[in-house]
Amino acid sequence: MCFNLLDEKNQKMKSHTRRSFLKKTFVNTSLAMGAVSGSVVPSEGKQVNSSAARSQGSKPKIKFSVIGLNHGHIYGQTDTIVRAGGELCSFTAKEPELISAFAKRYPQAKFVKSEAEILEDSAIQLIVSASISDERGPLGIKVMQHGKDFMSDKPGFVSLSQLEEARSVQRETKRIYSIMYSERFGNRATVKAGELVQQGAIGKVIQTIGLGPHRLSASSRPPWFFDKKRFGGILCDIGSHQFDQFLFFTGSTEAEIVASQWSNVNHPEYPDFEDFGDVMLRGNKGTGYIRVDWFTPDGLTTWGDGRLTLMGTDGYIELRKYTDPAGREGGDHLFLVNHEKPQYIDCKLQPLPYGEQLVNDILNRTETAMSQQHCFLVMELALNAQAQAKKVVLSK
Amino acid sequence: MCFNLLDEKNQKMKSHTRRSFLKKTFVNTSLAMGAVSGSVVPSEGKQVNSSAARSQGSKPKIKFSVIGLNHGHIYGQTDTIVRAGGELCSFTAKEPELISAFAKRYPQAKFVKSEAEILEDSAIQLIVSASISDERGPLGIKVMQHGKDFMSDKPGFVSLSQLEEARSVQRETKRIYSIMYSERFGNRATVKAGELVQQGAIGKVIQTIGLGPHRLSASSRPPWFFDKKRFGGILCDIGSHQFDQFLFFTGSTEAEIVASQWSNVNHPEYPDFEDFGDVMLRGNKGTGYIRVDWFTPDGLTTWGDGRLTLMGTDGYIELRKYTDPAGREGGDHLFLVNHEKPQYIDCKLQPLPYGEQLVNDILNRTETAMSQQHCFLVMELALNAQAQAKKVVLSK
Repeated sequence: MCFNLLDEKNQKMKSHTRRSFLKKTFVNTSLAMGAVSGSVVPSEGKQVNSSAARSQGSKPKIKFSVIGLNHGHIYGQTDTIVRAGGELCSFTAKEPELISAFAKRYPQAKFVKSEAEILEDSAIQLIVSASISDERGPLGIKVMQHGKDFMSDKPGFVSLSQLEEARSVQRETKRIYSIMYSERFGNRATVKAGELVQQGAIGKVIQTIGLGPHRLSASSRPPWFFDKKRFGGILCDIGSHQFDQFLFFTGSTEAEIVASQWSNVNHPEYPDFEDFGDVMLRGNKGTGYIRVDWFTPDGLTTWGDGRLTLMGTDGYIELRKYTDPAGREGGDHLFLVNHEKPQYIDCKLQPLPYGEQLVNDILNRTETAMSQQHCFLVMELALNAQAQAKKVVLSK
Repeated sequence: MCFNLLDEKNQKMKSHTRRSFLKKTFVNTSLAMGAVSGSVVPSEGKQVNSSAARSQGSKPKIKFSVIGLNHGHIYGQTDTIVRAGGELCSFTAKEPELISAFAKRYPQAKFVKSEAEILEDSAIQLIVSASISDERGPLGIKVMQHGKDFMSDKPGFVSLSQLEEARSVQRETKRIYSIMYSERFGNRATVKAGELVQQGAIGKVIQTIGLGPHRLSASSRPPWFFDKKRFGGILCDIGSHQFDQFLFFTGSTEAEIVASQWSNVNHPEYPDFEDFGDVMLRGNKGTGYIRVDWFTPDGLTTWGDGRLTLMGTDGYIELRKYTDPAGREGGDHLFLVNHEKPQYIDCKLQPLPYGEQLVNDILNRTETAMSQQHCFLVMELALNAQAQAKKVVLSK
């Protein structure tokens, strides 16, 4: 699974003082919002026999295909479904270099020239996509109209009109539109925090603070990455992970944007880019604050020092998701402080249930991985925050 | 100095697994917003010959007095000036138990029955106060009108009208109205962060996030502590520390409140109390987010896990000011991540210059400890945030 591979890579990077810029760029682009077009190799040359991840000889639970490879997240998404018992049958994309990298990693998958071939293949139950952000909503709508389920990279939409159409088509077709918010579903510490909160370890959650810094590595990014119409804005894009966590951990089913803002503080060469954004929000069960940015400095051994702090009536949890700067090795660090002695919990063995839950949902027509209401509300909040955000201009 | 004593105490508490609730309560109430009335001994029975803190035999640089002992911070404030070369001449207060504790700690100080006796003593250059929050502004105004300088515990005011009157009297009299924001002036890691930012260690500061959790220990608090008219509201009170740090670290000289809110989530027995508050703000040089609360759980060995994160164009600094839960011993932890390898800096030997700077300002009529404009702008922001704040009611 891609997350494991990357964790392993991070460990290696720690053990070497410095690596080349190119290698660091890979870690950044493939785990974080990435421009994969021609510049990035999926797993640094490490072949993965992803079908081997399934129990030997077990019958595939579902058949699935991939449409759109524009973000490196596609490897994590694909591996998640393969490990959960999915058979990767076919894939398509427009960019030759992305096709060849994907084919090398998944030799079992047949390359097909058109989306239609996949959409019209009645054996395929699920379509997984990391196409360019503005293409995901329209694709997902088509997928559902073809009677299939859909799993998208985040953000799932770049406009409220895309979201509303998808909501309506989902209601009619009863298909699944899932968005893989990897900062929760792919992060073991975050999954563990969910269990602890569920067990009442910190009482009732009052507030969440999510910080999502990312490394930019501008030279490795394709043009669409800097075009707001295509990536949707910083709050819609990397912010969407944070709205997911806010709703999940507070248990809110309704929420409003109290205030939101964005800025392009330090990248005037990309006038349609946003390098900073933050949001205050209020749900029916708790409040939240979100900050996202593209300022991860070169000295950090991974793409971003993602943090999540959950404050409850009886304690708090802090996650150092991907790194503990000048502290413990690796990622997945959880700190629990409640009425007992403060505890450190290493979450590296915590299972990640999203893939299996989604596959079971596809088979059983259930909503255990993520409710449809939650999936869409996350993007509604992200898109509203983006639409309402005030541009900040700081003086020098 | 009070901060040192308390740091020492925290170390001891770490080395013992558990102490009695009473002792924990003390650490909480004396360093954090405290109700000292009759319930708390200044230094757990440890006598301090505070005049000995000055170089032996050196002539005092200034003479000062204390009016109002309602908050335990008065010990830190007094020690700060004694160590900087001040001679504590006299003090007054209304509460017999507070008078007797203060007299025991500072046997050199003469108790006088009325404020007037101090105000009219022409030898006294500075008055230090930790009276009840709503009495500080009116007292400071009288102090300046008597030609003396003033150093108040935070918050320096509980209303915009108090602030405006003080501003006007300060302009006329040219006296100093200083507010000892102990979460910066009394915290070595925060002072060190100021030096690092000044040296350009993280480039231009784009944003600050300040988290100020506090332990409540409700049973040790006097009635005024729960009366909003008197303590001023959570954003005015414990929030003011955070506005100070926001302005200081971003270098902003103008700022606006983007949004602010407060709640009484879990203390219905105190209907005029606020146990949670947060603020998003925008300055001319950077943005900021502030969260304050009264939810420090019993398991923490100190009164609050105060954090400050400074995000710059070329790196970031995180402070774990008073504790590093399940991590390093003690407080004053600074983490610097920039284009070099992440660094941990232990700041426990960092000097705290505020006291000496203030004493020199009194002698030289300068503004090195804190500009008057900054001092008042901090409280203006805190009071505006409080006045504009929306009350949040969370559903169960």
